[in-house]
Amino acid sequence: MKALAIDVGGTKMAAAVFLQDGTILERYVQPLGSRSGEAVGAMVAEAVLHMQKHQFNAVGIAVPGISRRQTGTVWAPNIPGWENYPLLQEVSAVAGQAPVRIEGDRSCYIMGETWQGRAQGCKNAIYLAVGTGIGAGIMADGRLLHGAADISGAIGWMALQRPFREEYISCGCFESMASGEGIAKVAKALANRDTGYTGPLTKDGLQAKEVFDAYHKKDRIAISVINQCIELWGMAAANLVSLFNPEKIIFGGGVFGPAAQFLPAITTEAARWAQPVSMGQVRFEASALHSDAGLYGAAYLAFHA
Amino acid sequence: MKALAIDVGGTKMAAAVFLQDGTILERYVQPLGSRSGEAVGAMVAEAVLHMQKHQFNAVGIAVPGISRRQTGTVWAPNIPGWENYPLLQEVSAVAGQAPVRIEGDRSCYIMGETWQGRAQGCKNAIYLAVGTGIGAGIMADGRLLHGAADISGAIGWMALQRPFREEYISCGCFESMASGEGIAKVAKALANRDTGYTGPLTKDGLQAKEVFDAYHKKDRIAISVINQCIELWGMAAANLVSLFNPEKIIFGGGVFGPAAQFLPAITTEAARWAQPVSMGQVRFEASALHSDAGLYGAAYLAFHA
Repeated sequence: MKALAIDVGGTKMAAAVFLQDGTILERYVQPLGSRSGEAVGAMVAEAVLHMQKHQFNAVGIAVPGISRRQTGTVWAPNIPGWENYPLLQEVSAVAGQAPVRIEGDRSCYIMGETWQGRAQGCKNAIYLAVGTGIGAGIMADGRLLHGAADISGAIGWMALQRPFREEYISCGCFESMASGEGIAKVAKALANRDTGYTGPLTKDGLQAKEVFDAYHKKDRIAISVINQCIELWGMAAANLVSLFNPEKIIFGGGVFGPAAQFLPAITTEAARWAQPVSMGQVRFEASALHSDAGLYGAAYLAFHA
Repeated sequence: MKALAIDVGGTKMAAAVFLQDGTILERYVQPLGSRSGEAVGAMVAEAVLHMQKHQFNAVGIAVPGISRRQTGTVWAPNIPGWENYPLLQEVSAVAGQAPVRIEGDRSCYIMGETWQGRAQGCKNAIYLAVGTGIGAGIMADGRLLHGAADISGAIGWMALQRPFREEYISCGCFESMASGEGIAKVAKALANRDTGYTGPLTKDGLQAKEVFDAYHKKDRIAISVINQCIELWGMAAANLVSLFNPEKIIFGGGVFGPAAQFLPAITTEAARWAQPVSMGQVRFEASALHSDAGLYGAAYLAFHA
């Protein structure tokens, strides 16, 4: 049995044909470039046709947003024209007999880690994806959590600090402070308010990576921002522990990455907040699959189509 | 088909034989009194024997704590001797051919509301139980959420306010401020610190009910405590909405009750924090089954044994 996995990201599409043991027979990567709407759909269909020589049995697709399983449409905020795009129908038309399944990327991440990464053997595991934004893929009692309209796991909106502030309106409390974009914003705002500050964090277009670099150079603003993030990541992870009683929480996305070094501190912080018995049963780990987590998850999805 | 439902509470045991349409054929209630350990087990077994004349087909039991499904043992913090009590084995021995299923009370509450209460027809619904303590029963994608060791839903431990404070150690941040016990404690502490205060909230043995009474008499401490609770209940409900994308959140337990009047304010507060699409799809309601939610849930459990 062979699976075709396709991971449509915000900037590129990766496809691969997998064997059931996780071996990859062929990889195929294309930048999205300036494509939008139907042009991205056509690109996915092309990948299916390109891989047809492998005679795959099923197709799994990860999309950077939400898969509405009842209608077969997808919503991807960073792909213009994919507000309600009929991707299932379009890919099924070129996939022949092979069934097609589509899930949001965060759901694919946790499936990938459960199949070939750090959550192998777990029935209860959560992938906390901290990149530009923040989301969670949740495997509970051996099944992906979907919710009433397939939008579960929107953990970037988690309320962690009272009172409500205007900064939370656009993307939620947790994401506004502890995502990649949040880290850069909070650092820049603090640096600009600090009249005695002469470090690098006031620059235009500041990126989270530069805040991590400054942290290692003992920049006081960077230290304060990262320490706040450790507290928030710990609180959010604690809330997942108390609610879901999982075996693993996997930290991934672009920020973990550089923030993976803080996992011991995040664990210590979470242990202050979480239900203590559940906390004793969970392990926090960094993603093993990195940017391939979605691709592996899409393959797992196909094998279980 | 008939089900025997037994709800073991902290102070009394209620049993009832149900028909599949929700009709109750007989109720049987006994106070726990000073019973502990095996004496409570014997009381449950007696209820089974007492009801045997109805020739029930299955038994469902709600326990005030955790049911460890792999071992058939239960943990109930308020029943001495029920740290790891073999209730399944004991009840099965007197139940004859009838299968026996046991779940924690918070799981039974949401099953009860899904079957005969305010969450009928929902596949994604959560019961937020606010009484002496706080817990949540979670139905996700049509199934009860259990977690790795059957201790999911420990929402009393939810982190909602930084930085960590000593008061959170024993029962968690959310519970320490917004449970029945938390309301009384916070009110008393505020009243004692307020030198100009002459109201009723400084008394020994203060109960949450008295804080609600004082609120209606415009007591300034009570107003401040209840307003803080509305904010915390709203934040916690928002976090459930963002994570689970449920159709309903049912507010129950002894505090809802008197706090049910604040549901519109709690909804408004939650809407500031939660993922906006999910928030638009959820309804917040007060329990319809009140103190019978666990009994109805145990019956539902039996019918699906």
